[in-house]
Amino acid sequence: MTRAKASTGGTRGFIVPIGGDDRRIRKAAILRRFAQLCGGSRAHIGIVSTVSEMPDAAYRYERAFRDLRIDRISLLRFGSRADCESERNLAVLDAVDGIFLLGADTSHFSDTLGNTSAAQKIHSRNAQGIHVAATSTGAAFLPEQMIAAGQSGTTPRADIVELAPGLGLIGELIIDQHYRHQDRLGRLLMALTYNPRAIGIGLDEDTAAFIGPDHRLQVVGSGGITIVDPSQLQHSAIHPDRRHAPVSMIGLHLDILVEGDLYDLAAHRATINR
Amino acid sequence: MTRAKASTGGTRGFIVPIGGDDRRIRKAAILRRFAQLCGGSRAHIGIVSTVSEMPDAAYRYERAFRDLRIDRISLLRFGSRADCESERNLAVLDAVDGIFLLGADTSHFSDTLGNTSAAQKIHSRNAQGIHVAATSTGAAFLPEQMIAAGQSGTTPRADIVELAPGLGLIGELIIDQHYRHQDRLGRLLMALTYNPRAIGIGLDEDTAAFIGPDHRLQVVGSGGITIVDPSQLQHSAIHPDRRHAPVSMIGLHLDILVEGDLYDLAAHRATINR
Repeated sequence: MTRAKASTGGTRGFIVPIGGDDRRIRKAAILRRFAQLCGGSRAHIGIVSTVSEMPDAAYRYERAFRDLRIDRISLLRFGSRADCESERNLAVLDAVDGIFLLGADTSHFSDTLGNTSAAQKIHSRNAQGIHVAATSTGAAFLPEQMIAAGQSGTTPRADIVELAPGLGLIGELIIDQHYRHQDRLGRLLMALTYNPRAIGIGLDEDTAAFIGPDHRLQVVGSGGITIVDPSQLQHSAIHPDRRHAPVSMIGLHLDILVEGDLYDLAAHRATINR
Repeated sequence: MTRAKASTGGTRGFIVPIGGDDRRIRKAAILRRFAQLCGGSRAHIGIVSTVSEMPDAAYRYERAFRDLRIDRISLLRFGSRADCESERNLAVLDAVDGIFLLGADTSHFSDTLGNTSAAQKIHSRNAQGIHVAATSTGAAFLPEQMIAAGQSGTTPRADIVELAPGLGLIGELIIDQHYRHQDRLGRLLMALTYNPRAIGIGLDEDTAAFIGPDHRLQVVGSGGITIVDPSQLQHSAIHPDRRHAPVSMIGLHLDILVEGDLYDLAAHRATINR
Protein backbone atom coordinates (compact mmCIF):
# COMPACT_ATOMS: atom_id res chain seq x y z
CA MET A 1 0.00 0.00 0.00
CA THR A 2 1.47 3.38 -0.93
CA ARG A 3 1.58 6.26 1.47
CA ALA A 4 -1.31 8.74 1.49
CA LYS A 5 -0.41 11.75 -0.63
CA ALA A 6 -2.33 14.91 -1.25
CA SER A 7 -4.29 14.45 -4.47
CA THR A 8 -4.03 17.14 -7.11
CA GLY A 9 -5.40 20.36 -5.68
CA GLY A 10 -6.14 18.74 -2.29
CA THR A 11 -4.39 18.37 1.03
CA ARG A 12 -4.12 15.21 3.10
CA GLY A 13 -6.27 15.20 6.22
CA PHE A 14 -4.88 14.99 9.73
CA ILE A 15 -3.76 11.62 11.09
CA VAL A 16 -4.42 11.39 14.82
CA PRO A 17 -3.07 8.40 16.74
CA ILE A 18 -4.33 8.34 20.36
CA GLY A 19 -2.68 6.37 23.18
CA GLY A 20 -5.89 4.74 24.44
CA ASP A 21 -7.95 4.74 27.65
CA ASP A 22 -11.44 5.56 26.42
CA ARG A 23 -12.76 6.17 29.94
CA ARG A 24 -10.48 9.11 30.63
CA ILE A 25 -10.42 10.45 27.10
CA ARG A 26 -14.02 11.64 27.29
CA LYS A 27 -12.88 14.41 29.64
CA ALA A 28 -9.92 15.39 27.50
CA ALA A 29 -9.36 17.90 24.78
CA ILE A 30 -8.54 15.27 22.17
CA LEU A 31 -12.05 14.52 20.91
CA ARG A 32 -12.96 18.22 20.95
CA ARG A 33 -9.94 19.07 18.81
CA PHE A 34 -10.71 16.22 16.42
CA ALA A 35 -14.37 17.23 16.16
CA GLN A 36 -13.36 20.82 15.42
CA LEU A 37 -10.99 19.69 12.66
CA CYS A 38 -13.87 17.71 11.10
CA GLY A 39 -16.17 20.74 11.03
CA GLY A 40 -17.55 21.06 14.56
CA SER A 41 -21.28 20.49 15.04
CA ARG A 42 -21.78 20.18 11.26
CA ALA A 43 -19.37 17.23 11.11
CA HIS A 44 -20.37 13.68 10.20
CA ILE A 45 -18.14 11.28 12.14
CA GLY A 46 -17.77 7.59 11.36
CA ILE A 47 -16.77 5.40 14.33
CA VAL A 48 -15.17 2.23 12.96
CA SER A 49 -14.86 -1.08 14.80
CA THR A 50 -13.07 -4.13 13.39
CA VAL A 51 -14.71 -6.64 15.73
CA SER A 52 -17.96 -8.45 14.93
CA GLU A 53 -19.83 -7.23 18.01
CA MET A 54 -19.78 -3.44 18.33
CA PRO A 55 -17.76 -2.89 21.54
CA ASP A 56 -18.89 -0.78 24.48
CA ALA A 57 -16.13 1.65 23.62
CA ALA A 58 -18.00 2.53 20.40
CA TYR A 59 -21.00 3.70 22.42
CA ARG A 60 -18.81 5.57 24.89
CA TYR A 61 -17.13 7.50 22.07
CA GLU A 62 -20.50 8.06 20.35
CA ARG A 63 -21.79 9.54 23.61
CA ALA A 64 -18.66 11.68 23.98
CA PHE A 65 -19.08 13.06 20.44
CA ARG A 66 -22.78 13.68 21.13
CA ASP A 67 -21.74 15.69 24.21
CA LEU A 68 -19.65 17.80 21.82
CA ARG A 69 -22.86 18.47 19.82
CA ILE A 70 -21.99 16.19 16.93
CA ASP A 71 -25.38 15.14 15.60
CA ARG A 72 -24.32 12.99 12.65
CA ILE A 73 -22.48 9.89 13.82
CA SER A 74 -22.34 6.58 11.94
CA LEU A 75 -21.21 3.41 13.66
CA LEU A 76 -19.40 1.22 11.14
CA ARG A 77 -18.82 -2.44 11.88
CA PHE A 78 -16.01 -4.01 9.84
CA GLY A 79 -16.16 -7.39 11.56
CA SER A 80 -15.37 -9.45 8.46
CA ARG A 81 -13.71 -8.96 5.10
CA ALA A 82 -17.23 -9.07 3.56
CA ASP A 83 -18.14 -6.05 5.73
CA CYS A 84 -15.05 -4.31 4.32
CA GLU A 85 -16.33 -4.83 0.75
CA SER A 86 -19.98 -3.89 1.46
CA GLU A 87 -21.18 -1.10 -0.86
CA ARG A 88 -23.31 0.29 1.95
CA ASN A 89 -20.33 0.57 4.32
CA LEU A 90 -18.12 2.08 1.61
CA ALA A 91 -20.83 4.67 0.88
CA VAL A 92 -20.77 5.71 4.54
CA LEU A 93 -16.97 6.12 4.40
CA ASP A 94 -17.55 8.34 1.36
CA ALA A 95 -19.99 10.50 3.30
CA VAL A 96 -18.16 11.15 6.58
CA ASP A 97 -15.91 14.12 7.42
CA GLY A 98 -13.86 12.21 9.96
CA ILE A 99 -13.08 8.57 10.72
CA PHE A 100 -12.47 7.35 14.26
CA LEU A 101 -10.95 3.85 14.42
CA LEU A 102 -11.35 1.90 17.66
CA GLY A 103 -8.79 -0.45 19.19
CA ALA A 104 -9.09 -4.23 18.87
CA ASP A 105 -6.93 -7.31 19.03
CA THR A 106 -4.07 -6.33 16.68
CA SER A 107 -4.59 -9.40 14.47
CA HIS A 108 -8.10 -8.14 13.57
CA PHE A 109 -6.62 -5.17 11.71
CA SER A 110 -4.49 -7.12 9.27
CA ASP A 111 -6.84 -10.15 9.04
CA THR A 112 -10.08 -8.22 8.61
CA LEU A 113 -9.35 -4.71 7.32
CA GLY A 114 -5.95 -5.09 5.64
CA ASN A 115 -5.97 -4.75 1.82
CA THR A 116 -9.77 -4.47 1.55
CA SER A 117 -11.84 -1.88 -0.30
CA ALA A 118 -12.59 -0.26 3.08
CA ALA A 119 -8.86 0.11 3.81
CA GLN A 120 -8.32 1.62 0.35
CA LYS A 121 -11.28 3.95 0.89
CA ILE A 122 -9.94 5.20 4.25
CA HIS A 123 -6.62 5.71 2.51
CA SER A 124 -8.00 7.67 -0.45
CA ARG A 125 -10.37 9.75 1.68
CA ASN A 126 -7.51 10.73 4.01
CA ALA A 127 -5.50 11.75 0.94
CA GLN A 128 -8.48 13.92 -0.10
CA GLY A 129 -8.52 15.76 3.23
CA ILE A 130 -10.69 13.66 5.55
CA HIS A 131 -9.23 13.32 9.05
CA VAL A 132 -8.52 9.91 10.55
CA ALA A 133 -8.13 9.34 14.30
CA ALA A 134 -7.44 5.97 15.88
CA THR A 135 -7.10 4.92 19.48
CA SER A 136 -5.10 2.21 21.28
CA THR A 137 -4.05 -0.60 18.91
CA GLY A 138 -5.90 1.26 16.13
CA ALA A 139 -3.28 4.02 16.49
CA ALA A 140 -0.47 1.51 15.97
CA PHE A 141 -2.23 0.30 12.78
CA LEU A 142 -2.15 3.72 11.02
CA PRO A 143 1.44 3.68 9.57
CA GLU A 144 2.93 1.22 7.08
CA GLN A 145 4.26 -1.04 9.84
CA MET A 146 2.56 -1.84 13.13
CA ILE A 147 3.68 -3.44 16.37
CA ALA A 148 1.43 -6.51 16.34
CA ALA A 149 2.65 -8.08 19.57
CA GLY A 150 5.41 -7.68 22.07
CA GLN A 151 6.60 -7.97 25.62
CA SER A 152 7.25 -5.42 28.32
CA GLY A 153 10.73 -4.22 29.16
CA THR A 154 13.02 -1.27 28.68
CA THR A 155 15.86 -3.14 27.00
CA PRO A 156 15.51 -4.17 23.33
CA ARG A 157 15.79 -7.87 22.45
CA ALA A 158 15.18 -9.46 19.05
CA ASP A 159 12.21 -11.48 20.32
CA ILE A 160 10.55 -8.60 22.18
CA VAL A 161 8.40 -7.45 19.26
CA GLU A 162 6.44 -8.77 16.26
CA LEU A 163 5.63 -6.48 13.35
CA ALA A 164 2.78 -6.65 10.84
CA PRO A 165 1.71 -4.49 7.89
CA GLY A 166 -0.32 -1.43 8.83
CA LEU A 167 -2.90 0.70 7.04
CA GLY A 168 -0.16 2.80 5.42
CA LEU A 169 -1.68 6.27 5.89
CA ILE A 170 1.77 7.52 6.82
CA GLY A 171 5.18 6.01 6.20
CA GLU A 172 8.31 5.74 8.27
CA LEU A 173 6.61 5.91 11.63
CA ILE A 174 6.25 3.23 14.29
CA ILE A 175 3.54 3.97 16.86
CA ASP A 176 3.18 2.32 20.24
CA GLN A 177 0.37 3.06 22.68
CA HIS A 178 -0.75 2.62 26.32
CA TYR A 179 2.85 3.67 26.65
CA ARG A 180 3.39 5.11 30.10
CA HIS A 181 1.88 2.25 32.02
CA GLN A 182 3.15 -0.72 30.07
CA ASP A 183 6.92 -0.34 29.86
CA ARG A 184 7.18 -0.49 26.10
CA LEU A 185 10.44 1.30 25.27
CA GLY A 186 12.28 -1.97 24.54
CA ARG A 187 9.78 -3.15 21.93
CA LEU A 188 9.64 0.30 20.31
CA LEU A 189 13.45 0.39 20.09
CA MET A 190 13.51 -3.10 18.62
CA ALA A 191 10.85 -2.18 16.03
CA LEU A 192 13.14 0.71 15.02
CA THR A 193 16.08 -1.64 14.68
CA TYR A 194 14.02 -3.39 12.01
CA ASN A 195 12.90 -0.02 10.51
CA PRO A 196 15.86 2.33 11.01
CA ARG A 197 14.39 4.96 8.67
CA ALA A 198 11.26 5.26 10.81
CA ILE A 199 10.69 7.51 13.81
CA GLY A 200 9.28 5.83 16.92
CA ILE A 201 6.36 7.39 18.76
CA GLY A 202 5.24 6.16 22.17
CA LEU A 203 1.83 7.54 23.13
CA ASP A 204 0.78 7.70 26.77
CA GLU A 205 -2.87 7.05 27.52
CA ASP A 206 -5.21 10.02 27.06
CA THR A 207 -2.61 11.59 24.75
CA ALA A 208 -2.75 12.14 21.00
CA ALA A 209 -0.41 13.17 18.19
CA PHE A 210 -2.19 15.47 15.72
CA ILE A 211 -0.13 14.94 12.57
CA GLY A 212 -0.90 17.58 9.95
CA PRO A 213 -0.46 17.37 6.18
CA ASP A 214 2.82 19.29 6.63
CA HIS A 215 4.17 16.30 8.66
CA ARG A 216 4.22 18.39 11.83
CA LEU A 217 2.93 16.66 14.93
CA GLN A 218 1.35 18.43 17.91
CA VAL A 219 0.72 16.84 21.30
CA VAL A 220 -2.76 17.05 22.86
CA GLY A 221 -3.73 15.36 26.13
CA SER A 222 -2.72 14.78 29.73
CA GLY A 223 0.29 12.48 29.16
CA GLY A 224 3.56 12.61 27.27
CA ILE A 225 4.75 11.43 23.88
CA THR A 226 8.14 9.74 23.64
CA ILE A 227 9.88 10.32 20.30
CA VAL A 228 12.79 8.05 19.37
CA ASP A 229 14.81 9.07 16.32
CA PRO A 230 17.18 6.31 15.15
CA SER A 231 18.45 8.21 12.10
CA GLN A 232 21.88 8.62 13.73
CA LEU A 233 21.98 4.98 14.91
CA GLN A 234 25.59 3.94 14.52
CA HIS A 235 25.54 0.30 15.40
CA SER A 236 23.17 -2.41 16.33
CA ALA A 237 23.90 -6.07 16.60
CA ILE A 238 21.33 -8.86 16.42
CA HIS A 239 22.52 -12.40 16.84
CA PRO A 240 20.15 -14.66 14.85
CA ASP A 241 20.79 -17.53 17.23
CA ARG A 242 20.35 -15.46 20.41
CA ARG A 243 16.99 -13.79 19.91
CA HIS A 244 16.37 -13.36 23.63
CA ALA A 245 19.68 -11.56 24.18
CA PRO A 246 19.68 -7.78 24.65
CA VAL A 247 20.76 -5.77 21.62
CA SER A 248 23.24 -2.87 21.43
CA MET A 249 21.86 0.40 20.03
CA ILE A 250 24.15 3.43 19.93
CA GLY A 251 23.25 6.98 18.94
CA LEU A 252 19.50 7.15 19.52
CA HIS A 253 17.92 10.54 19.92
CA LEU A 254 15.16 10.80 22.53
CA ASP A 255 12.62 13.57 23.12
CA ILE A 256 9.75 13.66 25.59
CA LEU A 257 6.96 16.00 24.51
CA VAL A 258 3.89 17.18 26.41
CA GLU A 259 0.73 19.05 25.49
CA GLY A 260 1.31 21.82 22.98
CA ASP A 261 4.82 20.69 22.00
CA LEU A 262 5.58 20.16 18.31
CA TYR A 263 7.66 17.70 16.34
CA ASP A 264 8.55 18.09 12.68
CA LEU A 265 8.68 14.53 11.31
CA ALA A 266 10.46 15.67 8.14
CA ALA A 267 13.15 17.73 9.87
CA HIS A 268 13.40 15.42 12.94
CA ARG A 269 13.13 18.48 15.18
CA ALA A 270 11.16 19.05 18.39
CA THR A 271 9.93 22.43 19.60
CA ILE A 272 8.65 23.17 23.08
CA ASN A 273 5.52 25.31 23.05
CA ARG A 274 5.76 27.57 26.08
CA MET B 1 31.92 14.59 50.22
CA THR B 2 34.47 15.07 47.48
CA ARG B 3 34.82 12.70 44.60
CA ALA B 4 37.33 9.86 44.85
CA LYS B 5 40.55 10.89 43.17
CA ALA B 6 43.73 8.96 42.65
CA SER B 7 46.11 9.77 45.48
CA THR B 8 49.65 10.79 44.60
CA GLY B 9 51.29 7.90 42.83
CA GLY B 10 48.18 5.72 43.05
CA THR B 11 45.20 4.93 40.85
CA ARG B 12 41.59 4.81 41.88
CA GLY B 13 40.11 1.31 42.08
CA PHE B 14 37.26 0.11 39.92
CA ILE B 15 33.70 1.11 40.80
CA VAL B 16 31.27 -1.67 39.91
CA PRO B 17 27.54 -1.00 40.18
CA ILE B 18 25.47 -4.17 39.61
CA GLY B 19 21.78 -4.18 38.68
CA GLY B 20 20.72 -6.72 41.33
CA ASP B 21 19.22 -10.23 41.40
CA ASP B 22 21.60 -12.15 43.65
CA ARG B 23 20.05 -15.51 42.74
CA ARG B 24 21.01 -15.30 39.08
CA ILE B 25 24.25 -13.44 39.58
CA ARG B 26 25.96 -16.47 41.10
CA LYS B 27 26.03 -18.03 37.64
CA ALA B 28 27.27 -14.91 35.95
CA ALA B 29 30.67 -13.58 35.05
CA ILE B 30 30.32 -10.50 37.24
CA LEU B 31 31.62 -11.91 40.52
CA ARG B 32 34.43 -13.75 38.73
CA ARG B 33 35.58 -10.55 37.04
CA PHE B 34 35.38 -8.64 40.33
CA ALA B 35 37.30 -11.36 42.19
CA GLN B 36 40.00 -11.33 39.50
CA LEU B 37 40.36 -7.54 39.78
CA CYS B 38 40.82 -7.93 43.54
CA GLY B 39 43.63 -10.46 43.15
CA GLY B 40 41.91 -13.79 42.47
CA SER B 41 42.27 -16.52 45.07
CA ARG B 42 44.67 -14.33 47.08
CA ALA B 43 42.03 -11.61 47.46
CA HIS B 44 40.44 -10.60 50.75
CA ILE B 45 36.85 -9.52 50.05
CA GLY B 46 34.68 -7.58 52.50
CA ILE B 47 30.92 -8.07 52.07
CA VAL B 48 29.15 -5.07 53.59
CA SER B 49 25.54 -4.96 54.78
CA THR B 50 23.83 -1.84 56.12
CA VAL B 51 21.01 -3.68 57.88
CA SER B 52 21.19 -4.86 61.49
CA GLU B 53 20.56 -8.54 60.74
CA MET B 54 22.98 -9.93 58.14
CA PRO B 55 20.68 -10.73 55.18
CA ASP B 56 20.54 -14.09 53.40
CA ALA B 57 22.01 -12.38 50.35
CA ALA B 58 25.27 -11.91 52.30
CA TYR B 59 25.61 -15.66 52.73
CA ARG B 60 24.67 -16.31 49.10
CA TYR B 61 27.40 -13.95 47.88
CA GLU B 62 29.87 -15.39 50.42
CA ARG B 63 29.14 -18.85 49.03
CA ALA B 64 29.49 -17.58 45.46
CA PHE B 65 32.90 -16.05 46.24
CA ARG B 66 33.94 -19.26 48.02
CA ASP B 67 33.02 -21.16 44.82
CA LEU B 68 35.47 -18.85 43.04
CA ARG B 69 38.17 -20.03 45.52
CA ILE B 70 38.23 -16.84 47.54
CA ASP B 71 39.34 -18.01 51.00
CA ARG B 72 39.47 -14.70 52.84
CA ILE B 73 36.01 -13.18 53.15
CA SER B 74 34.90 -10.81 55.92
CA LEU B 75 31.23 -10.11 56.53
CA LEU B 76 30.84 -6.52 57.73
CA ARG B 77 27.64 -5.41 59.42
CA PHE B 78 27.08 -1.65 59.38
CA GLY B 79 23.63 -1.78 60.95
CA SER B 80 24.02 1.41 62.98
CA ARG B 81 26.10 4.58 62.90
CA ALA B 82 28.05 3.14 65.89
CA ASP B 83 28.97 0.13 63.71
CA CYS B 84 30.24 2.64 61.12
CA GLU B 85 32.59 4.20 63.71
CA SER B 86 33.81 0.90 65.22
CA GLU B 87 37.63 0.64 65.13
CA ARG B 88 37.36 -3.08 64.52
CA ASN B 89 35.15 -2.60 61.45
CA LEU B 90 37.36 0.20 60.11
CA ALA B 91 40.41 -2.05 60.52
CA VAL B 92 38.71 -4.70 58.37
CA LEU B 93 38.01 -2.08 55.67
CA ASP B 94 41.73 -1.24 55.83
CA ALA B 95 42.65 -4.89 55.28
CA VAL B 96 40.42 -5.91 52.36
CA ASP B 97 41.30 -5.84 48.65
CA GLY B 98 37.72 -5.41 47.52
CA ILE B 99 34.46 -4.19 49.04
CA PHE B 100 31.10 -5.65 48.02
CA LEU B 101 28.14 -3.56 49.20
CA LEU B 102 24.74 -5.29 49.41
CA GLY B 103 21.38 -3.73 48.64
CA ALA B 104 19.03 -2.52 51.37
CA ASP B 105 16.17 -0.12 51.85
CA THR B 106 17.58 3.06 50.29
CA SER B 107 17.05 5.10 53.47
CA HIS B 108 19.51 2.81 55.33
CA PHE B 109 22.37 4.09 53.21
CA SER B 110 22.02 7.76 54.02
CA ASP B 111 20.73 7.23 57.59
CA THR B 112 23.28 4.63 58.65
CA LEU B 113 26.36 4.83 56.43
CA GLY B 114 26.23 8.40 55.11
CA ASN B 115 28.99 10.72 56.41
CA THR B 116 30.44 8.17 58.84
CA SER B 117 34.06 7.07 59.28
CA ALA B 118 33.19 3.87 57.39
CA ALA B 119 31.91 5.90 54.41
CA GLN B 120 35.08 8.00 54.47
CA LYS B 121 37.17 4.85 54.70
CA ILE B 122 35.47 3.23 51.68
CA HIS B 123 36.03 6.50 49.86
CA SER B 124 39.74 6.79 50.69
CA ARG B 125 40.45 3.11 50.07
CA ASN B 126 38.80 3.31 46.63
CA ALA B 127 40.96 6.35 45.87
CA GLN B 128 44.01 4.24 46.86
CA GLY B 129 43.11 1.48 44.40
CA ILE B 130 40.73 -0.84 46.25
CA HIS B 131 37.79 -1.96 44.12
CA VAL B 132 34.22 -1.32 45.24
CA ALA B 133 31.23 -3.26 43.87
CA ALA B 134 27.64 -2.72 44.95
CA THR B 135 24.45 -4.45 43.98
CA SER B 136 20.81 -3.34 43.67
CA THR B 137 20.11 -0.18 45.72
CA GLY B 138 23.76 -0.29 46.85
CA ALA B 139 24.71 0.42 43.22
CA ALA B 140 22.50 3.52 43.18
CA PHE B 141 24.25 4.72 46.38
CA LEU B 142 27.76 4.82 44.84
CA PRO B 143 27.68 8.25 43.08
CA GLU B 144 27.18 11.69 44.65
CA GLN B 145 23.42 11.57 44.14
CA MET B 146 21.17 8.54 44.45
CA ILE B 147 17.60 7.75 43.45
CA ALA B 148 16.12 7.18 46.90
CA ALA B 149 12.55 6.48 45.82
CA GLY B 150 10.42 6.66 42.75
CA GLN B 151 7.55 5.32 40.75
CA SER B 152 7.36 3.22 37.62
CA GLY B 153 6.66 4.71 34.22
CA THR B 154 8.39 5.68 31.03
CA THR B 155 7.40 9.35 31.02
CA PRO B 156 9.18 11.79 33.37
CA ARG B 157 7.11 13.74 35.91
CA ALA B 158 8.39 16.00 38.68
CA ASP B 159 6.98 13.76 41.42
CA ILE B 160 8.23 10.48 39.92
CA VAL B 161 11.57 10.48 41.76
CA GLU B 162 13.17 11.45 45.07
CA LEU B 163 16.91 12.02 45.31
CA ALA B 164 19.26 11.69 48.29
CA PRO B 165 23.01 12.15 48.78
CA GLY B 166 25.09 9.14 47.79
CA LEU B 167 28.50 7.81 48.83
CA GLY B 168 30.25 10.08 46.33
CA LEU B 169 32.79 7.61 44.93
CA ILE B 170 32.09 9.01 41.48
CA GLY B 171 30.48 12.28 40.42
CA GLU B 172 28.03 13.23 37.73
CA LEU B 173 26.44 9.84 37.42
CA ILE B 174 22.91 8.74 38.32
CA ILE B 175 22.50 4.97 38.62
CA ASP B 176 19.22 3.09 38.57
CA GLN B 177 18.93 -0.68 38.96
CA HIS B 178 16.55 -3.64 38.55
CA TYR B 179 16.05 -1.68 35.37
CA ARG B 180 14.65 -4.00 32.73
CA HIS B 181 11.79 -5.37 34.77
CA GLN B 182 10.64 -2.27 36.61
CA ASP B 183 9.98 0.37 33.97
CA ARG B 184 12.29 3.02 35.39
CA LEU B 185 13.15 5.26 32.44
CA GLY B 186 10.83 8.06 33.61
CA ARG B 187 12.43 8.36 37.04
CA LEU B 188 15.94 8.19 35.58
CA LEU B 189 15.08 10.96 33.09
CA MET B 190 13.59 13.06 35.87
CA ALA B 191 16.69 12.57 38.06
CA LEU B 192 18.71 13.89 35.11
CA THR B 193 16.47 16.93 34.81
CA TYR B 194 17.59 17.75 38.36
CA ASN B 195 21.24 16.85 37.52
CA PRO B 196 21.71 17.85 33.88
CA ARG B 197 25.51 17.47 34.07
CA ALA B 198 25.20 13.83 35.10
CA ILE B 199 24.97 10.79 32.85
CA GLY B 200 22.14 8.35 33.61
CA ILE B 201 22.84 4.63 33.81
CA GLY B 202 20.04 2.06 33.97
CA LEU B 203 21.36 -1.38 34.97
CA ASP B 204 19.37 -4.49 34.12
CA GLU B 205 19.45 -7.32 36.63
CA ASP B 206 22.48 -9.62 36.44
CA THR B 207 24.36 -6.82 34.65
CA ALA B 208 27.26 -4.69 35.90
CA ALA B 209 29.16 -1.60 34.80
CA PHE B 210 32.89 -1.99 35.48
CA ILE B 211 34.02 1.64 35.70
CA GLY B 212 37.80 1.90 35.56
CA PRO B 213 40.02 4.69 36.90
CA ASP B 214 40.11 6.07 33.32
CA HIS B 215 36.33 6.69 33.53
CA ARG B 216 35.69 4.03 30.92
CA LEU B 217 32.80 1.70 31.65
CA GLN B 218 32.52 -1.87 30.38
CA VAL B 219 29.35 -3.98 30.48
CA VAL B 220 29.46 -7.48 32.01
CA GLY B 221 26.41 -9.71 32.43
CA SER B 222 23.35 -11.11 30.71
CA GLY B 223 21.26 -7.90 30.43
CA GLY B 224 21.68 -4.45 28.96
CA ILE B 225 22.75 -1.06 30.26
CA THR B 226 20.77 2.00 29.21
CA ILE B 227 22.87 5.17 29.01
CA VAL B 228 21.08 8.52 28.92
CA ASP B 229 23.22 11.56 28.15
CA PRO B 230 21.40 14.85 28.82
CA SER B 231 24.37 17.09 27.95
CA GLN B 232 22.61 18.30 24.79
CA LEU B 233 19.28 18.78 26.58
CA GLN B 234 17.78 21.88 25.02
CA HIS B 235 14.66 22.47 27.03
CA SER B 236 12.83 21.08 29.94
CA ALA B 237 9.90 22.59 31.71
CA ILE B 238 8.81 21.79 35.26
CA HIS B 239 5.69 23.47 36.57
CA PRO B 240 6.12 23.81 40.37
CA ASP B 241 2.36 23.67 40.84
CA ARG B 242 1.86 20.64 38.57
CA ARG B 243 4.29 18.09 39.91
CA HIS B 244 2.33 15.14 38.55
CA ALA B 245 2.29 16.53 35.01
CA PRO B 246 4.63 15.03 32.42
CA VAL B 247 7.72 17.08 31.61
CA SER B 248 9.17 18.00 28.21
CA MET B 249 12.76 16.88 27.59
CA ILE B 250 14.28 17.56 24.17
CA GLY B 251 17.66 16.45 22.88
CA LEU B 252 18.45 13.40 25.02
CA HIS B 253 21.01 10.94 23.72
CA LEU B 254 20.25 7.27 24.35
CA ASP B 255 22.51 4.23 24.02
CA ILE B 256 21.75 0.61 24.86
CA LEU B 257 24.89 -1.40 25.63
CA VAL B 258 25.34 -5.13 26.13
CA GLU B 259 28.14 -7.36 27.38
CA GLY B 260 31.56 -6.24 26.22
CA ASP B 261 30.42 -2.80 25.02
CA LEU B 262 32.28 0.26 26.32
CA TYR B 263 31.25 3.77 27.31
CA ASP B 264 33.69 6.60 27.93
CA LEU B 265 32.08 8.70 30.66
CA ALA B 266 34.46 11.61 30.02
CA ALA B 267 34.00 11.73 26.24
CA HIS B 268 30.29 10.68 26.34
CA ARG B 269 31.03 8.07 23.68
CA ALA B 270 29.87 4.46 23.33
CA THR B 271 31.77 1.74 21.51
CA ILE B 272 30.37 -1.63 20.50
CA ASN B 273 32.74 -4.48 21.20
CA ARG B 274 32.25 -6.99 18.38
